[in-house]
Amino acid sequence: MSKGKNKLLQGASLRKTAAAHENDTDHSLSRRNLLRGAGLAGAAALVAACDSGADTKCEGGPAIATKKRQLKMVTSWPKNFPGLGTGAERLAKRIEALSGGDITVKVYAAGELVGALGGFDAVSQGKADMYHAAEYYWQGKSPAFNFFAAVPMGMTASEMNAWIRFEGGQELWDELSGNFGIKPFLAGNTGVQMGGWFQRDINNLEDFQGLRIRMPGLGGEVMKRVGATPVTKQGGEIFQALSQGNIDATEWIGPWNDLAFGFHSIVKNYYYPGIHEPGTSLSLGLNKELWDDMSPREQEIVRSAAAAENDLMYAEFNAGNARALETLTGEHGVQLKRFSDDILRKLATLSAEVLADAAKSDAMTARVFESFQEARRGAIRWGAISEQSFAHARSLIEG
Amino acid sequence: MSKGKNKLLQGASLRKTAAAHENDTDHSLSRRNLLRGAGLAGAAALVAACDSGADTKCEGGPAIATKKRQLKMVTSWPKNFPGLGTGAERLAKRIEALSGGDITVKVYAAGELVGALGGFDAVSQGKADMYHAAEYYWQGKSPAFNFFAAVPMGMTASEMNAWIRFEGGQELWDELSGNFGIKPFLAGNTGVQMGGWFQRDINNLEDFQGLRIRMPGLGGEVMKRVGATPVTKQGGEIFQALSQGNIDATEWIGPWNDLAFGFHSIVKNYYYPGIHEPGTSLSLGLNKELWDDMSPREQEIVRSAAAAENDLMYAEFNAGNARALETLTGEHGVQLKRFSDDILRKLATLSAEVLADAAKSDAMTARVFESFQEARRGAIRWGAISEQSFAHARSLIEG
Repeated sequence: MSKGKNKLLQGASLRKTAAAHENDTDHSLSRRNLLRGAGLAGAAALVAACDSGADTKCEGGPAIATKKRQLKMVTSWPKNFPGLGTGAERLAKRIEALSGGDITVKVYAAGELVGALGGFDAVSQGKADMYHAAEYYWQGKSPAFNFFAAVPMGMTASEMNAWIRFEGGQELWDELSGNFGIKPFLAGNTGVQMGGWFQRDINNLEDFQGLRIRMPGLGGEVMKRVGATPVTKQGGEIFQALSQGNIDATEWIGPWNDLAFGFHSIVKNYYYPGIHEPGTSLSLGLNKELWDDMSPREQEIVRSAAAAENDLMYAEFNAGNARALETLTGEHGVQLKRFSDDILRKLATLSAEVLADAAKSDAMTARVFESFQEARRGAIRWGAISEQSFAHARSLIEG
Repeated sequence: MSKGKNKLLQGASLRKTAAAHENDTDHSLSRRNLLRGAGLAGAAALVAACDSGADTKCEGGPAIATKKRQLKMVTSWPKNFPGLGTGAERLAKRIEALSGGDITVKVYAAGELVGALGGFDAVSQGKADMYHAAEYYWQGKSPAFNFFAAVPMGMTASEMNAWIRFEGGQELWDELSGNFGIKPFLAGNTGVQMGGWFQRDINNLEDFQGLRIRMPGLGGEVMKRVGATPVTKQGGEIFQALSQGNIDATEWIGPWNDLAFGFHSIVKNYYYPGIHEPGTSLSLGLNKELWDDMSPREQEIVRSAAAAENDLMYAEFNAGNARALETLTGEHGVQLKRFSDDILRKLATLSAEVLADAAKSDAMTARVFESFQEARRGAIRWGAISEQSFAHARSLIEG
């Protein structure tokens, strides 16, 4: 269905009474057209409104058109996976509630409709209507996608939000994803991830030599350049690999999710800070034909629901991580260990090289990198005199 | 209008066709009742829906009831005040867009309907439907309100969000505000505020003696205990007071808003960190009778719009502050100066005393303080090994 026709449905042609609606074959044709719309599943309905106030007669009041949409959301997460999977479910429920039931969203865990990394293609091709995932999963399409999730030594959650919402990030993201027929939104953040679980102490740079560490993506590339051997493992495979000694170390997410996986029963060394993912943004990606077909109200429902989830998920991760950290150290004897400044300095230098190399791959990635770096410079400067300086002040008598 | 009747309107009694609606006097009576509902302004309308799919005939399909609501939002901000005023406007627009126009929200700047500090009473008494403000403005009702905006040496934006959303804060807030007939939501954050503009250098604790500084609320009380003289000035009065030497120093918000006020043309010393407001939450407060009268869809519209604004405003402040900081230091010769650790340690100690004293005022404030402190302890521990440690790592080669 064309945008023009959709507009028509909401406009002048619907300024009719409820009674007139009954015999309006023009509407029924339109309704049939709705059913053929891209990304539309299920029935489409027209609602004729009578807003003549306290009067009982409905005459010539404005009317609204409401489609019924049954949408499919594929995710990269196991069913009800804490934080990410539950966040995607909450986002779906919010879209439904905001629409008053006009839109329903069925959530598919990884593997139910497509695999954990299949969301992008599925939505691009219209096999699913939307995905909830992390954009670095699509780095095979373009390295530029990494910057919209997390990159080594990149930006924190609030810094990512400032860049994407108010410093040009969304426009670049729209352009990048638009080339694949996808409309993207921020829809959650894990916060800073932990450095990881290490069988042996990491005291200096030599300790990385030959270390088999589970770390995907650009973080893995940093590990490679420091002499380690990055290994790719799906979440569900890590525990066994670690317990059998097939890997020497692993990062996963943070205390909340790591506690659930039970790594502390095998390894006690829990290193910080994680430099590979300093504030991983999650995203909601919509099939763009579906997005273009949506009414302004429907678009606002999706936009606002994604923004609300962006706010909630990060808060939930911070609350969950703070709680789980107490449990790990207080009840399970986990030792928090900090990477030395020498190590961090080297990892920071290598991270900068990895990002610069990624930016060379194509013009779009170069543009995204440039915008990202500019926002990052401003964020470093402002963060140093605001939240970090405040945290320092607070630490002088506490913590 | 009773909740029961509202429920009825959305339920069985509306399962009628659009045609039947035409002659349904029962509905018209209900509609008149709607007009008498608490917090309702303007006309109420019933929408009869026909969602029989591809069929042209509407028979026995479910129907939804949609009220038209014209709501008034009073704010504590000047018209279009950057960040706060514009955020309140954006929130109002979002509610309207999400409702597809069923709800309209007229925004009143401070002084248009009630004064900057009059929102709470106005909403409590039904003179306005909602306010956008900072809860510490209501500290005269109870000191507990301070904890839902900002307190000296308290929590940052993300820490406040974690506490209120996932660590019991919202429940206490609902109870506190519910006693005054108000339903509160998080709806924005300024981030850490700056320490302020000082005519003279502040090198040691003696430099606070007799210093006339504009700082309201509990932060002002900390200033008093360190030997300064806190002065109360509305935003619009500060510039003149500073330029005429009636005050020696002032805090306002941060680089973005401070630049707009032009303090840099009078004073060059810009101190950090601000310890008095480490992450000031803004809030949306609804008249509770209105809230209780809302349908689940309407409630979700308000809840989600507030959460989305909570996400956006903080991002906008971070982007605006980073930009303005460059301007202030690069173009206006502003000198960034950091309070010494000796000063910060003393201010932290005094802040803890001020909060503990506030908590003694009544049982509710004591409960809020206890919950706040517990969340704060966890946040300090988690923050130290996550974002702060990451920021340290990043600073080793940059910033």
